Amino acid sequence: MATVEELKLRIRELENELIKSKQKQSDAEHNIRPKIEQMSAEVVDSNPYSRLMALKRMGIVQDYEKIRSFAVAVVGVGGVGSVTAEMLTRCGIGKLLLFDYDKVELANMNRLFFQPHQAGLSKVEAAQHTLRNINPDVAFETHNYNITTMDNFTHFMDRVSHGGLEEGKPVDLILSCVDNFEARMAINTACNELGQIWMESGVSENAVSGHIQLIIPGETACFACAPPLVVAANIDEKTLKRDGVCAASLPTTMGVVAGLLVQNVLKYLLGFGTVSYYLGYNAMQDFFPSMAMKANPQCDDRHCRRQQDEYKKKEAERPKQEVVQEEEEVVHEDNEWGIELVSEVTEAELQDASGPIPDLPEGITVAYTIPEKDGGSGETVEETEQSLEELMAQMKKM
Amino acid sequence: MATVEELKLRIRELENELIKSKQKQSDAEHNIRPKIEQMSAEVVDSNPYSRLMALKRMGIVQDYEKIRSFAVAVVGVGGVGSVTAEMLTRCGIGKLLLFDYDKVELANMNRLFFQPHQAGLSKVEAAQHTLRNINPDVAFETHNYNITTMDNFTHFMDRVSHGGLEEGKPVDLILSCVDNFEARMAINTACNELGQIWMESGVSENAVSGHIQLIIPGETACFACAPPLVVAANIDEKTLKRDGVCAASLPTTMGVVAGLLVQNVLKYLLGFGTVSYYLGYNAMQDFFPSMAMKANPQCDDRHCRRQQDEYKKKEAERPKQEVVQEEEEVVHEDNEWGIELVSEVTEAELQDASGPIPDLPEGITVAYTIPEKDGGSGETVEETEQSLEELMAQMKKM
Repeated sequence: MATVEELKLRIRELENELIKSKQKQSDAEHNIRPKIEQMSAEVVDSNPYSRLMALKRMGIVQDYEKIRSFAVAVVGVGGVGSVTAEMLTRCGIGKLLLFDYDKVELANMNRLFFQPHQAGLSKVEAAQHTLRNINPDVAFETHNYNITTMDNFTHFMDRVSHGGLEEGKPVDLILSCVDNFEARMAINTACNELGQIWMESGVSENAVSGHIQLIIPGETACFACAPPLVVAANIDEKTLKRDGVCAASLPTTMGVVAGLLVQNVLKYLLGFGTVSYYLGYNAMQDFFPSMAMKANPQCDDRHCRRQQDEYKKKEAERPKQEVVQEEEEVVHEDNEWGIELVSEVTEAELQDASGPIPDLPEGITVAYTIPEKDGGSGETVEETEQSLEELMAQMKKM
Repeated sequence: MATVEELKLRIRELENELIKSKQKQSDAEHNIRPKIEQMSAEVVDSNPYSRLMALKRMGIVQDYEKIRSFAVAVVGVGGVGSVTAEMLTRCGIGKLLLFDYDKVELANMNRLFFQPHQAGLSKVEAAQHTLRNINPDVAFETHNYNITTMDNFTHFMDRVSHGGLEEGKPVDLILSCVDNFEARMAINTACNELGQIWMESGVSENAVSGHIQLIIPGETACFACAPPLVVAANIDEKTLKRDGVCAASLPTTMGVVAGLLVQNVLKYLLGFGTVSYYLGYNAMQDFFPSMAMKANPQCDDRHCRRQQDEYKKKEAERPKQEVVQEEEEVVHEDNEWGIELVSEVTEAELQDASGPIPDLPEGITVAYTIPEKDGGSGETVEETEQSLEELMAQMKKM
């Protein structure tokens, strides 16, 4: 039989082993680098911002540190949203607000970001855990709910209006990375009411096309002004939708769309390059159509019409500048983000367009058509209740 | 003083706690899903291939399972290469061979993939660990060395010629994701000698442009036929290179380039869409130039000239088909990958080009110019030893 001394020795051994084992776990789980107070351009291996701060020396961005002053809301943390959140985190954004109600599944493993061991966790929780590890300088706020239900929508509106970097202030930008029509319309409604600038993204059900779009309430077409634009896939739509059938997806297409989206976000927030209003990606032909579309004065969303009135008033009040027409380029000197119209559609063409659908450049089409009411004015989707299910089926997984 | 019974109880408690603690570690480290024998299209949450197999039902890919029969070598596991390897892993590629000699640093955290806790590990080792967790169905082979040294180059040649999915067979494709001129030239030399098809990728030093390129030895221009093409950044090159200055990089640009690269790989391997010969990305203007360039009969790489002879012979031996000219489209019916020329440059223009540099479409430029020798024939970079350092400085971090 063991002596008391032997037993005590064994206890000490076990206690030491346990401490080591727990330490190992803790190291792996919490080996988070300390926060960095000031972004530095110093070229050392240990500086996670050296390659970003180099954008200043390269003459691309004037004030890269400004990235820390922005709060961005990402709605939908799936194939596009998760990569979008990761890119913004690695760029050192000030604050990220993540909204999603889905769980990670093994069926998501054909896209970037989530890992098999996260299966079963909520997407926002799993994402926050990974992202905080990658960059502890970013502030995170997560909401594990569906923004389209009445209560959640009210809470969503409240958080995007008050959940900015400084609590009480609005977020700087909302990014729509959702995969269904209802959620897109909810974001559209919220942004029109709040006058909140947002960017849309989408990937087609056949996984080989996608797009990003910038929406400035009152200035550019909202989702109720005209059906959302998508990239034509040039593929026979033989697909029959049945139970047990899922959309296809590819990490490539979703990675490209997330990259183009966050690039547009950086250009918009940090003021460099040309911010795209609409940029499509056709993976089959490597074709990238771009355009812009004005708000529809007959839009059925009253908040959109109100924003249009306010925009017109602001434009009219603006001190008239001598319009210097050098060559054919129109310079928007007082446009604080350096946005330029890249549309193939002239303003005259847009104003002449009688219905809600303007002539579209090659390769872009609308996600669906809205039946005309008497009088020919555009009809909102919300009012065509009898066909809403049809529309949703068309838009699902867009 | 504690009794023997109390001490024994404590030992049992500690032993149980230790087992639990070790189990937790093991779960986190080794919670790898079992291998999947056959890819299935079944739409269940637990199937990691359902969204990829759906590409068949969507009419995009005829035989998605074929992805498992291919081996791809990725040279350079940095900002582009790591994401490239992850995308291929998630797509279920048969085998990946990774080559890199670098270590993960915190300074890499502004790109996707690597995580802060991996700082200090070799890139290939860290990558393999993450990728094996993501998809245990993929076979991995890693080489932690610089392919440009004599011994390593020989070993590299051997592995790409014999390290295919079935040992002894060549790999199906080599992807260049390196950040310097020397490594690109080493891959070029190897591929010309072996007649190995490869794809190139690159991101500019100012982080706002990039490109991908398909190189078929004997058919398209190799890196010794003409200086590599890059996308013009339309930015004043005021950058002075000094010690302690690093290139800028962005997760967006690198993610887009990796996405376009792997999309091209999937189209090439699985036979869908149009495979791009050269596709550029200008992030400042969201502009995507594309073109193709024929091999240069005066190329200084003798293996390139040999491949050109063999290609010509094969073309001449091919049974002549009646050329049906419908509209303006040239159909390469016997082209097994469905590759189409997307060049703005006609064949006549290419043949007329006296030097190694043809007329290039807007937005594309050569990485450097080669001084003309007497006689005007193109000169390889390897022979202009006095300016090699200059060239390398220009190409570094391209």
